[in-house]
Amino acid sequence: MGAMVKSTLTSPPLPPLGSSAARVGSSAIRDLLALAERPEVISLAGGLPDARTFPVDALAAAAADALADDPGATLQYGPTEGDPQLRDLVAHRLGADRANVTITSGAQQALQLVARAVLDPGDVVALADPAYVGALQAFRSADARLAPLPSDHHGLQVQALVELIDAGTVPSLVYVTSSFDNPTGATLAGQRRVALAELAEEHGFWIVDDDPYGELRWAGSAPTPLRELTDRTIVLGSTSKILSPGLRVGWASAPVELSRAIVVLKQSTDLHTSALSQQIVRRALGDEPAMATHLAILRSAYQRQAGALADALDRHLPGALRFGRPDGGMFLWAELAPHVAADASADQLLERALACGTAFVPGSAFAVEPTGGHRRRLRLSFATATEEELDEAARRLAGALALG
Amino acid sequence: MGAMVKSTLTSPPLPPLGSSAARVGSSAIRDLLALAERPEVISLAGGLPDARTFPVDALAAAAADALADDPGATLQYGPTEGDPQLRDLVAHRLGADRANVTITSGAQQALQLVARAVLDPGDVVALADPAYVGALQAFRSADARLAPLPSDHHGLQVQALVELIDAGTVPSLVYVTSSFDNPTGATLAGQRRVALAELAEEHGFWIVDDDPYGELRWAGSAPTPLRELTDRTIVLGSTSKILSPGLRVGWASAPVELSRAIVVLKQSTDLHTSALSQQIVRRALGDEPAMATHLAILRSAYQRQAGALADALDRHLPGALRFGRPDGGMFLWAELAPHVAADASADQLLERALACGTAFVPGSAFAVEPTGGHRRRLRLSFATATEEELDEAARRLAGALALG
Repeated sequence: MGAMVKSTLTSPPLPPLGSSAARVGSSAIRDLLALAERPEVISLAGGLPDARTFPVDALAAAAADALADDPGATLQYGPTEGDPQLRDLVAHRLGADRANVTITSGAQQALQLVARAVLDPGDVVALADPAYVGALQAFRSADARLAPLPSDHHGLQVQALVELIDAGTVPSLVYVTSSFDNPTGATLAGQRRVALAELAEEHGFWIVDDDPYGELRWAGSAPTPLRELTDRTIVLGSTSKILSPGLRVGWASAPVELSRAIVVLKQSTDLHTSALSQQIVRRALGDEPAMATHLAILRSAYQRQAGALADALDRHLPGALRFGRPDGGMFLWAELAPHVAADASADQLLERALACGTAFVPGSAFAVEPTGGHRRRLRLSFATATEEELDEAARRLAGALALG
Repeated sequence: MGAMVKSTLTSPPLPPLGSSAARVGSSAIRDLLALAERPEVISLAGGLPDARTFPVDALAAAAADALADDPGATLQYGPTEGDPQLRDLVAHRLGADRANVTITSGAQQALQLVARAVLDPGDVVALADPAYVGALQAFRSADARLAPLPSDHHGLQVQALVELIDAGTVPSLVYVTSSFDNPTGATLAGQRRVALAELAEEHGFWIVDDDPYGELRWAGSAPTPLRELTDRTIVLGSTSKILSPGLRVGWASAPVELSRAIVVLKQSTDLHTSALSQQIVRRALGDEPAMATHLAILRSAYQRQAGALADALDRHLPGALRFGRPDGGMFLWAELAPHVAADASADQLLERALACGTAFVPGSAFAVEPTGGHRRRLRLSFATATEEELDEAARRLAGALALG
């Protein structure tokens, strides 16, 4: 039996994905978050988009159209690269060409294929710590060495990358979630983007810009995309946060030579992404007025919910949590003030929060190193709860912190 | 850049999958088969099921039902293992339990996940030569060493496996397509199954039984499934040949411990298979009377087409090709009689066949070793052409062999 079987057979059974549970590192946290699925818990621990925002009727109409108008493209084997018209649509959105774009089974697959295409075992991947756990899995499965770098509310501290390189470690790949990062919610600042792009050009590393949340901006203006600053950028995108994650449609946009390598790997991985899902997404993304309306509704809902959560935290836990008010995305990243539960980690507080009927993901779940970190941080999702539930969740959290 | 990029960037651009072209090894054959896509060619080279048999209305109704009745399960993130009810249905068909079954993005993904879960680099995979090219890709991407074994019209010659083991090489995994093999159409004989199962028990290797074609039997009776002979069997299945390949729904049924390892790998690969596709397949497979009717129609169509092809070969190329009449599946595997084009390989004949307006896949495309083999063999698909087209294709093939 292979190493993977040996190393995983001792793990506890996986909780269902859909909870954040399946994406976090420590099994202790995973076990606790499984409890967040109980109906009496108002969970802010999820990484899911709000199912109430799914454009069910439009997607049903798109499915019916696809099956009626083009059953061949919808039900037969299709090209590994993806549906040509969908590739054109994605390329258009990114200012790229069809040849740059590979349609993938969600951005998670794009991440894994890019990691396998670009990295040799032992290659260094630099990334912000904390990080999206799915990215850590993808890079670890490519046997990369991870170089965690500090980040703040302007995203990855690029100066720390300069220092890493000056100390003799040039990464093969730098991973960023440039807009509304998971878990920190941070957007990489414009000047840091310029500096990062210049470093990529100078040292020849790839930048992977994982961008599932960029369209969810309701305030402020987006800095220049990394892809416009350097051709060393590989953009990953997804319909999971703007249409529906269940369809499993994402993409990678990369230089043509690299796209070819991605397609070769994808072919032996799953031949191609669900043709029906691609036909639905093509129709939904292609209807620009409807898509603009849908995104406006989505942004407005998340803006309202983000504001409701921030207000509720101010109301029920004044001064206890430090956080910035989000301009977009799905997450609020908070730090416990020093005087609050001074001896406790967020991991420990999660247990108390569950007893009080709410849940969050503790910062340590996103630590790059297994030794942890971010022990006084909480990731709070405002995406799926109602304004009333968000208020009640904050009240319960105050109770858990013995502030209620 | 990684080894994969280096080794693949020099390859020619991939032709679209959907032709068999993307699955065959040699780039010269690939280039020729790209020509088989021209409208004037009656191609018997495809590996596709017949699009005329897709139950479009039933699938459209299932899609509409799923989106209307359960948009949550259809559009939201779902469990990595797959939809519980679909897992139950698959388990029921296989005499397994839900915990054994992982829903995958087609059987190709199941193959790749199983290869990664079971194999360490350098482990030996024994399999019949010729073989399905997608399996070779999956095992090669797991850095396995391939041990090709001879096969005949009763499938893998298990005695050759005994000799391999006696000579000191115990494989970690033995790969078989037990029913209506691609490319040979052979079904592994009952006694060989018993012998293979006993070897697996004795030496502790896994048997991967890749079974996309088993339901397409219209004559004879199926031997006992390998899964009933030994728990060392991992069964791979797919809806691609019985419902629609574009949905990309397959499965692996394996012992529970191994299933867990498969799920861990799948999670970092694509989180889960398209939830919409799963909901559609659950409804289609779950309607047993409709499914039985559909399969009866499908078998009857393929039976008619297989007979039409065999008759046409007898009529237009009497004595020139040696083949058995298929009892199921999609392929007829033929050998050129010694006196026909005695100096030519099937590769060379393909060029002449294309000039005459027909196409097949030459046997060398399925050779396990890059040095080739099966040079006088042809894989002819009877799945997609009409009876008239099959007759005309045989006539053109006779012309290409200078028999017309």
